[in-house]
Amino acid sequence: MRLEVELGVRSYPIDIGSGTLAMLGERAAELRATRVLIVTNTTVGPLYLDRAVESLRKAMPNVPVEAVVLPDGECYKDLQHIQMILEAAGRVGLDRKSIMVALGGGVVGDMTGFAAGMWMRGIDFIQVPTTLLAQVDSSVGGKTGVNLPTGKNLIGLFHQPRAVLIDTDVLRTLPAREVSAGIAEIIKYGFLGDAAFVAELERDMQELRALDTHVVSRVVAHCCRMKAQIVREDEQENGVRAKLNLGHTFGHAIEKLTGFSTWLHGEAVGVGLVMAAMLSAELGHLNVTDVERVRRLVAASGLPTDICEGIAADDAWRAMLGDKKSVGGVVRFVVMHAVGNTAIESVPEDLVRRVMNAYGWH
Amino acid sequence: MRLEVELGVRSYPIDIGSGTLAMLGERAAELRATRVLIVTNTTVGPLYLDRAVESLRKAMPNVPVEAVVLPDGECYKDLQHIQMILEAAGRVGLDRKSIMVALGGGVVGDMTGFAAGMWMRGIDFIQVPTTLLAQVDSSVGGKTGVNLPTGKNLIGLFHQPRAVLIDTDVLRTLPAREVSAGIAEIIKYGFLGDAAFVAELERDMQELRALDTHVVSRVVAHCCRMKAQIVREDEQENGVRAKLNLGHTFGHAIEKLTGFSTWLHGEAVGVGLVMAAMLSAELGHLNVTDVERVRRLVAASGLPTDICEGIAADDAWRAMLGDKKSVGGVVRFVVMHAVGNTAIESVPEDLVRRVMNAYGWH
Repeated sequence: MRLEVELGVRSYPIDIGSGTLAMLGERAAELRATRVLIVTNTTVGPLYLDRAVESLRKAMPNVPVEAVVLPDGECYKDLQHIQMILEAAGRVGLDRKSIMVALGGGVVGDMTGFAAGMWMRGIDFIQVPTTLLAQVDSSVGGKTGVNLPTGKNLIGLFHQPRAVLIDTDVLRTLPAREVSAGIAEIIKYGFLGDAAFVAELERDMQELRALDTHVVSRVVAHCCRMKAQIVREDEQENGVRAKLNLGHTFGHAIEKLTGFSTWLHGEAVGVGLVMAAMLSAELGHLNVTDVERVRRLVAASGLPTDICEGIAADDAWRAMLGDKKSVGGVVRFVVMHAVGNTAIESVPEDLVRRVMNAYGWH
Repeated sequence: MRLEVELGVRSYPIDIGSGTLAMLGERAAELRATRVLIVTNTTVGPLYLDRAVESLRKAMPNVPVEAVVLPDGECYKDLQHIQMILEAAGRVGLDRKSIMVALGGGVVGDMTGFAAGMWMRGIDFIQVPTTLLAQVDSSVGGKTGVNLPTGKNLIGLFHQPRAVLIDTDVLRTLPAREVSAGIAEIIKYGFLGDAAFVAELERDMQELRALDTHVVSRVVAHCCRMKAQIVREDEQENGVRAKLNLGHTFGHAIEKLTGFSTWLHGEAVGVGLVMAAMLSAELGHLNVTDVERVRRLVAASGLPTDICEGIAADDAWRAMLGDKKSVGGVVRFVVMHAVGNTAIESVPEDLVRRVMNAYGWH
């Protein structure tokens, strides 16, 4: 199945289905790539790098193809490892018509896009997301970047890929923990703007966790369609796109305060969704049964619903002050007005602290 | 005097004249900056940082203003020192509505623009160029970036400033060597597209070197006007903008092979202009008297016309293969078809090598 992200001259296709990894060579050939640098990591490389290279070699026998293999994990999503990609680009001799390929999850995708966006002031890249999280969310929309010790995704670029290849077959090698982490972002799409999709997830959660082909394809396509629509409306996040941050203000604080190494991004977002629902209830927008619905769905997906070890409320509040949505010392949250209906609001510190305390952050 | 770089929503003014540094606060206030980070270096900081801060404090008494001071020199234009700026941004708590100010020469401007372009995926910045080179060339047009060991300006962004403040008074503290380096880029503008301007420079070179107020203002404005026009036609260098690279293919090779530390950028460009003229003669476009005219003007500006120590022809050729204009293993040069008339062409290796050998690169 093919979707299109419509962004004028920056439009690009998303191909979703079984075996789309084999289309990589074709896509690269369409871009007339002079050289290809595949960026992957130590987990994904051994599983899928050969197939990616084979597809490229077959479509473009005379084009040099090289790879750089990063260590696996959010804690390596930093400027030092961007430099590792850039040094590989220099060694391989990438020119302005060369391309990079992101073969991996959200970390690999964010880093490859960032490196491609700055190499010679911007070259093309293709996203081949291999985790559920990257397939439903991070590979689409052109947000790229890395973390700083100061905070999550503090530096980066808007740099759209030229194509996204979502091969649902590769999910078969994904550990259950990573599946659940991806489902956190899927749940987010429901609560941020689609009540019917929430009901669908409540119905199909077991099939989704079991990676039932039919359910996974439908869910991935649904999320990509929502994402493509939001990105089309607001590519550079001047408005509606910020809603995709539902659950992320709390989530990013968790990631930062645990050194980007204890919890997967999706796990932090899962807890963040529950806390955002609680905050929305504190604001009087949601009732207790709505909050419970969020918590139940997060729990049903296999995600932890309780993360508090090592998280002090003061530190968390400081982390939120440094969030990209905060301006002039005012912290802004995506809050739910109802299931499937969200808005971006500044929230008084005492309400946020009440939620943190109720959650065991002291 | 005010010029405008017309780029639709990214348009911005260039104010040129005596004392424009004092307008900094006003410009920052117009942008409604929530915080300001001034980026400067150990040479310029002691001379002008206080005045920049004073102007900002006066216009925006409640807005925090901080500074980060980089070491001075092209050899510090690297990713490590970008990280130094980004860490300062984190410490100071820059948010999406905060701004950076580049107070310095081309290196400071390129680095500040790059850091501003990636901080939270892009915040505003103001250029306050303090060298002649930055005033006539690098502060206008939004090219930002740093060097890699592999080559000059290999990573960067197109990120336009929101304002450029060119204070011709600050040139009074500029060492003669830096004045000559700036004149290299001025000469470039003449030969790349304006024969009358070449004649003007031949006539006024002594006044220009002496920083005669009248001549300097006229020359700076003329170059900025040419640059603004070229950038308007081709912001992202898909065509005509590459002509601004006249002299730079040889020049970048010199800089790289001498570790970005022996020669100023302008000095390398001066030699590059002479070599580009020789190459154009080899191609049959220029005659010997034209080449001599380039060499004489470069020499008259106080620039070295002979740089060969430590430069091997093979290394230089490899450096050129890694130049951003080279695609698919073909090296492209800006060549002169006549004084004031240039084109971008791929050139056979043996002609380039003949010029290098004639220049003493073996």
